[in-house]
Amino acid sequence: MPAVDTELRERAGQVIPNGMYGHMATGFYPEGVPQYYVSSQGTRLTDADGRVLIDCMSAYGPNLLGYNDPAVLAAIERQLRLGDTMSGPSPLMVTLAEAMVGLITGADWAMFCKNGSDATSMALMMARAHQGKSKILVGRHTYHGAQNWSTPRIAGILPSDRAHLIYFNVLDPEDFETARRAAGDDLAGVIVTPFRHETFESQADYLPGFARRLREVCDEADAVLILDEVRTGMRLAAGCAWDAIGVTPDLVCWGKVLGNGQPISAVTGTNRLRRAAEAIYVTGSFWFSAVPMAAALETLRQVSEGSYLERIRHAGQKLRSGLAEQAAAFGFQFSQSGPAVMPLFHFEDDPELRRVYRFCQIAAANGVLLSPYHNMFMNAAMTDTDISAILKATEIAFEGVRRDAGALPEPPPVVVARLEALRNAA
Amino acid sequence: MPAVDTELRERAGQVIPNGMYGHMATGFYPEGVPQYYVSSQGTRLTDADGRVLIDCMSAYGPNLLGYNDPAVLAAIERQLRLGDTMSGPSPLMVTLAEAMVGLITGADWAMFCKNGSDATSMALMMARAHQGKSKILVGRHTYHGAQNWSTPRIAGILPSDRAHLIYFNVLDPEDFETARRAAGDDLAGVIVTPFRHETFESQADYLPGFARRLREVCDEADAVLILDEVRTGMRLAAGCAWDAIGVTPDLVCWGKVLGNGQPISAVTGTNRLRRAAEAIYVTGSFWFSAVPMAAALETLRQVSEGSYLERIRHAGQKLRSGLAEQAAAFGFQFSQSGPAVMPLFHFEDDPELRRVYRFCQIAAANGVLLSPYHNMFMNAAMTDTDISAILKATEIAFEGVRRDAGALPEPPPVVVARLEALRNAA
Repeated sequence: MPAVDTELRERAGQVIPNGMYGHMATGFYPEGVPQYYVSSQGTRLTDADGRVLIDCMSAYGPNLLGYNDPAVLAAIERQLRLGDTMSGPSPLMVTLAEAMVGLITGADWAMFCKNGSDATSMALMMARAHQGKSKILVGRHTYHGAQNWSTPRIAGILPSDRAHLIYFNVLDPEDFETARRAAGDDLAGVIVTPFRHETFESQADYLPGFARRLREVCDEADAVLILDEVRTGMRLAAGCAWDAIGVTPDLVCWGKVLGNGQPISAVTGTNRLRRAAEAIYVTGSFWFSAVPMAAALETLRQVSEGSYLERIRHAGQKLRSGLAEQAAAFGFQFSQSGPAVMPLFHFEDDPELRRVYRFCQIAAANGVLLSPYHNMFMNAAMTDTDISAILKATEIAFEGVRRDAGALPEPPPVVVARLEALRNAA
Repeated sequence: MPAVDTELRERAGQVIPNGMYGHMATGFYPEGVPQYYVSSQGTRLTDADGRVLIDCMSAYGPNLLGYNDPAVLAAIERQLRLGDTMSGPSPLMVTLAEAMVGLITGADWAMFCKNGSDATSMALMMARAHQGKSKILVGRHTYHGAQNWSTPRIAGILPSDRAHLIYFNVLDPEDFETARRAAGDDLAGVIVTPFRHETFESQADYLPGFARRLREVCDEADAVLILDEVRTGMRLAAGCAWDAIGVTPDLVCWGKVLGNGQPISAVTGTNRLRRAAEAIYVTGSFWFSAVPMAAALETLRQVSEGSYLERIRHAGQKLRSGLAEQAAAFGFQFSQSGPAVMPLFHFEDDPELRRVYRFCQIAAANGVLLSPYHNMFMNAAMTDTDISAILKATEIAFEGVRRDAGALPEPPPVVVARLEALRNAA
């Protein structure tokens, strides 16, 4: 019985709407997954009741190198005593912009902000400022942050907030062509993520050639191709995810990982978009703070050094193979989608998600935080020992799901409602 | 010759659009004001060339208690080693929400975010979610952050982004009534700051009774009264600025000062708005991070203890009196507007701002950072000795403006253009 977490939830219910909000509210998780954490170190979280969990969420992305990576922590502590939020930026901002330009193919400049939503929204502004056109093509149901134009709930949102977005199915190139034609000669830009990574759905790659087609369409229309790497950044590559396929976006949105947990996001762009970037007005009280930039410089130093990526990939592959073996041994059809560094799995024949919810619940009870509905994030601090410990918990979880088969409880009511909404939308 | 600052600006020109952006770009400042700062302590900034300035901008607000206030710094460093951005919030979030509710009259709950813009935009969403109505009444030219609906430049912004805003002159109650009538039965809410504090204009109080009239209108229409305290928060009062006049807003937007420089903003609200707050979806990668909350808890502890406010007010009054005496002694008509804790001054007979720009330029050359166009912010670390040192520099500045009268240079071209735009708008 997690007494402290329960008490905190009760207190929060008084002073925080719904008790919690946003992506870190645990309403979509199985019962028993902690809402609150008192500390984190390396690959481990300690919850409010003192239980230690191996964390496969990595703070929903930011934890790239391990919580409190010693070199990043040292950079933070050093800069903190010098200055953080001052009446102007620190010289670190220039060095950091230079580092981004050095690291990202096609990037001629960088602008920094706080939230991933700041970066994606700023990119749309730039795309519209570029030639004064309006229409942006956006993946249907793609999450690009929680400002008015993209938040997944419509309460408080007006149709006018989205009047000039045209949606298309990211897995259907024909549907993209239809959307493109609908934009006519008013196409300002296209925004996509490097692959489909939406909650409650399998992750999925685009069809081959789709990114090149986006580039072609944007070139023909003098429109702006925006790649949203907020969730994927520096996990798919030590640079831009599309380097591997030779497509250069005009603008790339970065967030989450840049400061290994320090609050900083960014847009990088090509010289073609410099004039548009100069035309818009965006700012924030803390966008110029020095500490997150010091953390980002050290994070990018490790990124450009490169071995972090091998460690993350190795951990992801080892977890994926181990899960596949266990699933087979227990006789489950078990699918794992997306890149191994951003794991997501589903049980086959599990339309109500009873199996995967019970699986993650048992894993949590055995010291491993997994998500049944949101892609997970591997990090570079994960060792073979960590993966073995995770697999020990998942073995118990597979066993439990098999044992409880036929008596698996329903997921929480909000999940049941969400699944029904998804079925109705399909 | 500030060689390092100059070199940094040159490097930045390559990798940052316009060399810098947002409110911390020094394009609106007189030549010679530094763009970059390497460190800050108490009331002092050190620029990239090693020059020390007494800072009257206080990081544009966040520096409430003094840079690196020892107790806030200790709270930050303690929490940093425990955990910051984790896979869930820390219990500190609940304690902080309780502290906000305890401190703010009428606040039944709090939601935290990063930018002031997050808070104001979230408040508009809630106002619209409340009864499903659309229209928001907004002060003409009032700055409420830099998202699409309120950024002061229109590049990249669509008319639809602002289709359901109705503007009114905040100093003209009749104009407000016209706007209110234009909203008809679709009035979702009204957003105002506690007084008018726009750049390049004198600060100004509303007419007496205006806040009560806003409350009355919102009550009649079941609309939502939003007070934007992002810029004024905790400087006008240790709580809500409208406590003094007995008007309780439905939602209050907070930013800047909450963590004394750590990145955190918030919306507090009444129970009447709880359902709307629960209906919307907003989030951000770093909204739940623990370090800014630890800083905010210590900042609010000092706020609720109260003596910080006497120190800020004392410093503000002493500066205001000193400037008034100096201006009189040098024979200048010199106006100081707004509360003394948020100083702003103009020279009379200075339509092109030549005097005030030269004044601030000389002050900077003599070690004091003042703004010729944006309200300044006093902080609680400012001692009588600091104020005397500031006044020593302003005396030299008044002397210089008198000496150079007739040969005062024009402000930078962007300022000249801005003034012309303001004249054309009037």
